Amino acid sequence: MAFINLDHMSYKPLLPQVKSAMKAAIDMDFLNPSSMHKNGEQAAEALARSREAVRRLLNCSDAKEVVFTSGGTESVNHAIKGAAAANIEKGRHLIISNIEHNAVIRSAKRLQSMGYSVTSVSVDGKGRVNPDEIAEAITGETILVSIMHSNNETGTIQPIEQIAEITRKKKILFHTDAVDSVGVVPIDVQQLGVDLLSFSANTFHGPTGVGGLYIRKGSRVFPMFDGGVQENNKRAGTENLIGIIGAGAAAEETQQHLAQWQAHTLGLKRYLLAQLPRYIDEYIVNTHPVHSLPSMLSVSIQYIEGESVMLMLDDENIAVSTRSACATGSLRASHVLTSIGLSHADAQGTLVISFGKDNTEAQIDRFLGVLKNVVATLREISPLYNKTPR
Amino acid sequence: MAFINLDHMSYKPLLPQVKSAMKAAIDMDFLNPSSMHKNGEQAAEALARSREAVRRLLNCSDAKEVVFTSGGTESVNHAIKGAAAANIEKGRHLIISNIEHNAVIRSAKRLQSMGYSVTSVSVDGKGRVNPDEIAEAITGETILVSIMHSNNETGTIQPIEQIAEITRKKKILFHTDAVDSVGVVPIDVQQLGVDLLSFSANTFHGPTGVGGLYIRKGSRVFPMFDGGVQENNKRAGTENLIGIIGAGAAAEETQQHLAQWQAHTLGLKRYLLAQLPRYIDEYIVNTHPVHSLPSMLSVSIQYIEGESVMLMLDDENIAVSTRSACATGSLRASHVLTSIGLSHADAQGTLVISFGKDNTEAQIDRFLGVLKNVVATLREISPLYNKTPR
Repeated sequence: MAFINLDHMSYKPLLPQVKSAMKAAIDMDFLNPSSMHKNGEQAAEALARSREAVRRLLNCSDAKEVVFTSGGTESVNHAIKGAAAANIEKGRHLIISNIEHNAVIRSAKRLQSMGYSVTSVSVDGKGRVNPDEIAEAITGETILVSIMHSNNETGTIQPIEQIAEITRKKKILFHTDAVDSVGVVPIDVQQLGVDLLSFSANTFHGPTGVGGLYIRKGSRVFPMFDGGVQENNKRAGTENLIGIIGAGAAAEETQQHLAQWQAHTLGLKRYLLAQLPRYIDEYIVNTHPVHSLPSMLSVSIQYIEGESVMLMLDDENIAVSTRSACATGSLRASHVLTSIGLSHADAQGTLVISFGKDNTEAQIDRFLGVLKNVVATLREISPLYNKTPR
Repeated sequence: MAFINLDHMSYKPLLPQVKSAMKAAIDMDFLNPSSMHKNGEQAAEALARSREAVRRLLNCSDAKEVVFTSGGTESVNHAIKGAAAANIEKGRHLIISNIEHNAVIRSAKRLQSMGYSVTSVSVDGKGRVNPDEIAEAITGETILVSIMHSNNETGTIQPIEQIAEITRKKKILFHTDAVDSVGVVPIDVQQLGVDLLSFSANTFHGPTGVGGLYIRKGSRVFPMFDGGVQENNKRAGTENLIGIIGAGAAAEETQQHLAQWQAHTLGLKRYLLAQLPRYIDEYIVNTHPVHSLPSMLSVSIQYIEGESVMLMLDDENIAVSTRSACATGSLRASHVLTSIGLSHADAQGTLVISFGKDNTEAQIDRFLGVLKNVVATLREISPLYNKTPR
């Protein structure tokens, strides 16, 4: 029974080019990019090539605007806490939304405990922020707005350009958590107009534990790590060179193939949406019909537990997700799903199905066939399902 | 002309076992350790194995006390800023020494700018802190003492156990930056008595960009990264699994071979010290004769520039260092060398020679032969050398 990965939000397989670049780096045994020997220079060149690949992928004007980090979470923490600390003279007010990733929400909470105030704007039934609400929330004390590019549980994409217009006029820093977007949809920092953008290499088929923060030239943001002068003085510490080389190879490939991957996954998403009613009934599609990632779909199947569905699918070697992998272990209903108005019960029945470039329609067919049986089995023993008149 | 690496402080080659473990991880294409599928469980098990290997290397009582980070700099920042933030109710005073790594000094400076006060104790002519000075510097406001285990420029080892006795009595957190010690000398957190200990995997032949922080159970330290629940809630963010697997393999090998490597490098250090007067004169040995790393030697060669020596050696395919690679680009004299009483001129003439398990006496002979010529050439054109009466 071949493994079917419909959980690309948790992990995207490394591209062959990433694997070979990382293995070559391991064999080269690069020296420290900061050491002043010939080998150190080689390492510094490899680092520069990766930075340039990311610069191109995001269309930054200068490679120095790209800071490599240990992943999306570090990037988000760096952006929010670094901007807050650097602009404390100007004010202590931040604006986020109710459906941000925990990296944003908990960074904001940490700042609250240090005397900052945070406004969290709500979203509509499909998880979209209203830019007008952001404009209204801005005060003379506001130093940062942080709104995610796409949501990791629903796939809904936010009106980033419109928000950026507002923050630019007000000269307030704007950060977007694009961890689930870079590598899935085209991301152009000039077009978006953001000052800060967080990304993760695994979303574009690079290794986990590598990511970056785009810091537009002139943005006042303190480093998270003080120490050496690495990363153009924006992030101290000897670099994860093997990982960064993998990220660079992934960025190069992604830039070449993104349009094709995007079309392919969008095709699968549409296929699944079209087929779904043939297999199950009584479900809610949480993903925005227009403004959403091509690669994922959030569906709440009523009267059952998503976790049970996931485990039964796992037995059939099919991976889907119920929510962010980062929240594993938490028993509370997802703050994202309750924010879009789902009941606690419907939120518990949610599946996140996320596609990758190698998925096929045949895999979707097999998934739907298994899902049908799983749902029937679970509803058979569901008191709620059996008590509901229909 | 075979490459001779006498700069193991900047980079230690990956062990064969590390290379093969990392390549296998790349091929396995592990899923996210937090995802709830079979593959996610495999990833979680690999992560647990690496954590256990580090626990054994450091003799922690519980693997949960080991937090994997993106390297020594993150660990140090986490320890210092995390302890400062978590204990602000108790006080805002920190104690460090004048010869700490920039990660410590600049983290302390960052905290100073936020209203904390910092006492930096001096060191003697061989770079050792006097524990009595620490005891005297402690006030009712002191919340953290951070003293490095060994210095990255001189190799001098500090009296950590004696300092820990003092901090334990006063119930003050004690952090040691052991980035240059773990993998070079035996490190036992129980014997040292520290609460927090930073390490870097490359020092024990693991990949760069991976390290960790030992946090003794019960120590009040806030995370650096807020977000998901990874690393037992002590460090959010999807793990650099490939790197951590490399670090785990490195820790296992190091534990088995450390005594042998230690004896080997100490033999080379003694050999070099014994041979040196046969090749050059007018130099100062900065490394402590007793309390120092077996693997390195800091020597100030008078009347010449260490940087010129380093570059001329590089032409001969021999790598040595003048100072911490992290400080590359800085033109100021090393704060460590001026702290031990060296003149600015002598500090500029300093070479750091650091040995690894694969260096040989024949390599030392070749290095000394080349060094002799380099020093003679540079002194020939040194006005200072030629004007000095002798």
